[in-house]
Amino acid sequence: VPDATARDVGEFGLIDRVVERFGTSPGVVVGPGDDAAVVLAPDGRVVATTDVLVEGVHFRLDWSSGYDVGRKAAAASLADVAAMGGTGTSLLVGLAGPPDMPVEWATALADGLRDEAAVVGAVVVGGDTVSSERVVVSVSALGDLGGRAPVLRSGARPGDRVVLAGRLGWSAAGLALLRHGGVPVEVLVQAHLRPAPPYALGPALADLGATAMCDVSDGLVADLGHVARASGVHIDVESRRFAREPLLSRAARVVGAHPLDFVLTGGEDHALVATVPAGVALPEGVTRIGLVRPGAGVRVIGWKPATTSWDHFRSGPPEAGRP
Amino acid sequence: VPDATARDVGEFGLIDRVVERFGTSPGVVVGPGDDAAVVLAPDGRVVATTDVLVEGVHFRLDWSSGYDVGRKAAAASLADVAAMGGTGTSLLVGLAGPPDMPVEWATALADGLRDEAAVVGAVVVGGDTVSSERVVVSVSALGDLGGRAPVLRSGARPGDRVVLAGRLGWSAAGLALLRHGGVPVEVLVQAHLRPAPPYALGPALADLGATAMCDVSDGLVADLGHVARASGVHIDVESRRFAREPLLSRAARVVGAHPLDFVLTGGEDHALVATVPAGVALPEGVTRIGLVRPGAGVRVIGWKPATTSWDHFRSGPPEAGRP
Repeated sequence: VPDATARDVGEFGLIDRVVERFGTSPGVVVGPGDDAAVVLAPDGRVVATTDVLVEGVHFRLDWSSGYDVGRKAAAASLADVAAMGGTGTSLLVGLAGPPDMPVEWATALADGLRDEAAVVGAVVVGGDTVSSERVVVSVSALGDLGGRAPVLRSGARPGDRVVLAGRLGWSAAGLALLRHGGVPVEVLVQAHLRPAPPYALGPALADLGATAMCDVSDGLVADLGHVARASGVHIDVESRRFAREPLLSRAARVVGAHPLDFVLTGGEDHALVATVPAGVALPEGVTRIGLVRPGAGVRVIGWKPATTSWDHFRSGPPEAGRP
Repeated sequence: VPDATARDVGEFGLIDRVVERFGTSPGVVVGPGDDAAVVLAPDGRVVATTDVLVEGVHFRLDWSSGYDVGRKAAAASLADVAAMGGTGTSLLVGLAGPPDMPVEWATALADGLRDEAAVVGAVVVGGDTVSSERVVVSVSALGDLGGRAPVLRSGARPGDRVVLAGRLGWSAAGLALLRHGGVPVEVLVQAHLRPAPPYALGPALADLGATAMCDVSDGLVADLGHVARASGVHIDVESRRFAREPLLSRAARVVGAHPLDFVLTGGEDHALVATVPAGVALPEGVTRIGLVRPGAGVRVIGWKPATTSWDHFRSGPPEAGRP
């Protein structure tokens, strides 16, 4: 039935239609449909994280398709696993939505979750579906460390280099364009709706001896602040190290911002930022952006960021597009 | 500051105040505060499940304290782990709430999550805190099978006995009394606000050779329906096997129901129902309630249940107290 809603098919009808979108993997002992899933943890340890996305706060239904929300929700959790040096193996999904939620929206969400999980070889193994006025999606990701020690936020040492893997500022630029309402730059809008974290570089940086790592979800300066505080160090970010991206400059002109504001304070790209000992040869896709020194706090050399980071309970009325 | 809200302390202030309520355990390699947690999985497999509770659907803020919601949310997920034959090791918590959410409500929630987890020796290892208009709590539980094969819903065989561990109907009776608005029976209301699943009997029934098991969250008849369908069998429930509970009879009189309706169709007690081969000696706290036969569906012998089970998208306007 086209245009069928959750009410039309009922809770169990909806679950059936969502679950049939998911595949399986050799690491799944028990998948969706029982009281709980059972997943292999060959390493004897499991990495585990959860993220919650709320309609009107993290996404707008008029900007994001169900598929987009699925990709983004899965990416947010899987990037956290990568930031520990692990690889995602499975997802658990909680979906709260209104009875008039279109079945097609929910199955598109499932497709997005499945496809983003597939990027790292993970699968959706379970979930819960409940009613609520607004759509809320919670995604828990499990992952495997493959024998590695987890890379914490607390291991940065003076002399370490600060390195970046992945795009930075693209999501914030895309969001700024959506809010501005003019002609969007499609690739930036896509970067906002469907972040593309550099998953494989998480374990790669761990193997190279990264001393600290985190994913950039609150904004680079804010997230490096977490690393500096946890490690008891000062971090210098050298703004000249960021390549000038013509697309970011174009978006910045349109909305009256500076591209470095997108880069330094924009979240949601789920780039990975790490600290590595001096002398480590960086793999392709990883660039140096700063230096760890004794002291405290984060200083941006060559630029004064225009805004501070997002706070869920202080940043005014909810707007779409926040970590 | 008494009466402080999430807005007053900010997102990171709230996280600090919540996280300090949680303890740790030898099974936790990395706890709250990093991108993800790392938990031991000594068995080489991990049991994983998620449940979502929504304000106005699963709980009412005027009936449940933050502590109650924490206990209930943790119980819902930990009972799912027990129903596989496992023991919970850790919880991940997603909390969405409005900026005017009292800090005390959130810390009471944390205390409830911690205390319910402690019943099985589990701890809260991570989470996410975001803003939303209404309170939504998602809890993912991880667990350990201790070398056991997981007990699925699909293994019931004709001739098996259907057995019950834990209370049934108490939560539904407590909810009915709350809705009725008269003088409540405190122990039943408590059973609704803070279910007490028989966690240890999950692994115990697995060790005794249980062929199928699930937790009763949708109501006994509905949940046995899941077992019957997954196993390709018919299940007889013998209503005479349920002891007459004076408290349930009293609540039934007050609200004009029959106590067996509470027992047969009430969810949320998170009792465990299992099928075991004939001849198995049942441990204390486990009673026989029926028989597995060839065929399909569930039949209640000696009683006709008054209502069908809850459907999140079809059961009318949201009311508190549903699975």
